Amino acid sequence: MIAEIVSTGTELVQGETLNTNAHYLSGKLSALGIEVAYHTTVDDHAGRLENVLRQAVERSDLIFTTGGLGPTLDDLTKELTAKVLDLELALDSASLETIKAYFTSRQRPMPVSNEKQAYFPKGAKILSNPFGTAPGALIEKNGKTVVILPGPPHEMTAMFENHVWPELQKIVTPDMVRLNERILKVFGMGESAIEEQLAGLPDIAQAAVSLLIKKAEIHVHLVTRGTEKNLNGAADVLDRTELEIRKRLGNKVFGRDQETMAGIVGRQLKSKKLTIATAESCTGGLLGAALTTEPGSSVFYLGGAVSYSDALKRGLLGVNEESLFQYGAVSETVAGEMAEGIRLKAGADLALSTTGIAGPDGGSDLKPVGLVYIGLATPEGVLTERFQFFGDRENVRSFTVQAALNKARVYLLEK
Amino acid sequence: MIAEIVSTGTELVQGETLNTNAHYLSGKLSALGIEVAYHTTVDDHAGRLENVLRQAVERSDLIFTTGGLGPTLDDLTKELTAKVLDLELALDSASLETIKAYFTSRQRPMPVSNEKQAYFPKGAKILSNPFGTAPGALIEKNGKTVVILPGPPHEMTAMFENHVWPELQKIVTPDMVRLNERILKVFGMGESAIEEQLAGLPDIAQAAVSLLIKKAEIHVHLVTRGTEKNLNGAADVLDRTELEIRKRLGNKVFGRDQETMAGIVGRQLKSKKLTIATAESCTGGLLGAALTTEPGSSVFYLGGAVSYSDALKRGLLGVNEESLFQYGAVSETVAGEMAEGIRLKAGADLALSTTGIAGPDGGSDLKPVGLVYIGLATPEGVLTERFQFFGDRENVRSFTVQAALNKARVYLLEK
Repeated sequence: MIAEIVSTGTELVQGETLNTNAHYLSGKLSALGIEVAYHTTVDDHAGRLENVLRQAVERSDLIFTTGGLGPTLDDLTKELTAKVLDLELALDSASLETIKAYFTSRQRPMPVSNEKQAYFPKGAKILSNPFGTAPGALIEKNGKTVVILPGPPHEMTAMFENHVWPELQKIVTPDMVRLNERILKVFGMGESAIEEQLAGLPDIAQAAVSLLIKKAEIHVHLVTRGTEKNLNGAADVLDRTELEIRKRLGNKVFGRDQETMAGIVGRQLKSKKLTIATAESCTGGLLGAALTTEPGSSVFYLGGAVSYSDALKRGLLGVNEESLFQYGAVSETVAGEMAEGIRLKAGADLALSTTGIAGPDGGSDLKPVGLVYIGLATPEGVLTERFQFFGDRENVRSFTVQAALNKARVYLLEK
Repeated sequence: MIAEIVSTGTELVQGETLNTNAHYLSGKLSALGIEVAYHTTVDDHAGRLENVLRQAVERSDLIFTTGGLGPTLDDLTKELTAKVLDLELALDSASLETIKAYFTSRQRPMPVSNEKQAYFPKGAKILSNPFGTAPGALIEKNGKTVVILPGPPHEMTAMFENHVWPELQKIVTPDMVRLNERILKVFGMGESAIEEQLAGLPDIAQAAVSLLIKKAEIHVHLVTRGTEKNLNGAADVLDRTELEIRKRLGNKVFGRDQETMAGIVGRQLKSKKLTIATAESCTGGLLGAALTTEPGSSVFYLGGAVSYSDALKRGLLGVNEESLFQYGAVSETVAGEMAEGIRLKAGADLALSTTGIAGPDGGSDLKPVGLVYIGLATPEGVLTERFQFFGDRENVRSFTVQAALNKARVYLLEK
């Protein structure tokens, strides 16, 4: 079964409004195992919308439309869907009453133009709209299903959850091919290096593997398809493929599905009953923010210092004036002293530090933009590492946060 | 002239990634007066992508593609565009050298698979990519123009701004209707309160006004349309509408267009030659991260402490043990002592502090989730304020950051 989402609205194709509806619906359908192949967005132009709808009904089995249900003349989704499916429009008097009541409750007379919102393609199941005057509709004809939804996101999502989601449960049959997905998250390896490592995976014929760059991470997507009956088989293919990928990429794979690098470090710390502190320069607080994203982080995260100025590097962290003078703030020595300084000050088991040149200014031949030192202070001593990151300021900062967390993760894995 | 944006990527139609590229390109094209009629998004499926490209070239004059330029086998945008336009692919040796250099600078060998990124439809103008290995291309044939851009948004926007925007200037004629947009950013007022204040704007007939909720901010969008000849008239309508809105909403309007709250506070501090420090509890570093997002922040931001534990509140900030015991960490007293503590420690002119219950756990009847105290220490004394925020942990944290920055902004405005 192929699904398509057709969105209509001049504001969408002219860049005024971001099409979050298609994104939302795609996520819901994918979760059910329905394959969405197309998003088609078109302006409020009758001829174009008609062609788009006709094409959607031809090439897809399940079509969702959003928008074009308003009372104005260029709101034509129901009219054109009826035309494309060769159905007449018919008045639904219950809907008309509801629309009238909507205006009555707001102490306004119903404009005549709103009457058209009570007309639907004949045989449609009508979907009520708790937040607006435009009801939606679900139409089945010749094995095709068209679900007509309003454009405003809060109306659309409420209608989808109340009326469409239950209907979709009926469509999804045990013999339908569902999508099973797994994401393996990789840090510290480039896209093409991963691809080389993954060449010729034994299960690749059954599990489709694709790579996606997500800022500092690369996500390896595994997808299998199978009916509900052989769902265990599909999961098994995923398990075996994951195992093989982990064998090949080793601990560069840091997590799976919804897991985040910071979440994993937090979990490691909790399970080992260890605490951590941070001393940040170029990341300006992002590392602490990452460690405290998930609830319950106060168990393992004690806090830290954002020592942007040299004075605070000395005052809060006890970094040596001599080290700052001799090596500069962006140096291995200072990274180490920052980490050890905050570890002692906070009374933490571990501490991470970051110091680098996030750019775009402040670089030199010797210390170019993107140069970052990361320190990890542990009870056994201080580890430091030099990184050269690329891209803009935001990129350098987010790679630094990931690299610092990854350093703690690998240390905790091996401990 | 009709433009169409074709985006390819399974992650887009399966709801993992929001298609911000189409939105961005639409906005840019509309600003130039180019009419975008379609967004078409399709998964990484060769047959479907070919059909979509063929249709786009038939029905539209100016086609932008995003995605499908990677080194892997399912990256097929250039190959299929060449097929649809009946062009051969040819190696561009300059691009191959650039890609090789990209890997050399990262001290890695170039995988063979990346070679395909140096092949382009014959006759294409090649667009260099400063942030990745995939160059783009601009192809003109039979009166149709196809612009091929990479999928990662920062690569796409950089390539568009550097190479495509100047080309588009040549296409645009003075009689094309352009879109003029302005965004006024509001903090500290709800959607309906803003709507009430803005009822009956005198210029509303000419400038369309709409509200968009963006996390802790509400954006008031003003849009006018006009040809280049009456562009000054359109800008004038925007100016007068902005003036009227600012009169009605006062200093709740904190910025315009690309401005951010943190950027504005930074600018205020720079122009007054003042410095700031931060002491964060519930925001875990987000406030420091916000203040250091823009380059050059080391001029005004000295750093701070993330005092997640009570021990660090005492150790780094000198918060009174008695205050912590008597009022608790989430209290007006502690917020004040945190702010003044870091102000003295950092030798800063101003300091902001945050302490609160971000949730979802840790709330009580007396101190519910979302309760936050913000402190602002100044040379004239310490100001504190109590806030009750709503929503999830992420929401409470981002509202706290905005409220803290806003407190500094209003203080600096009045100073």
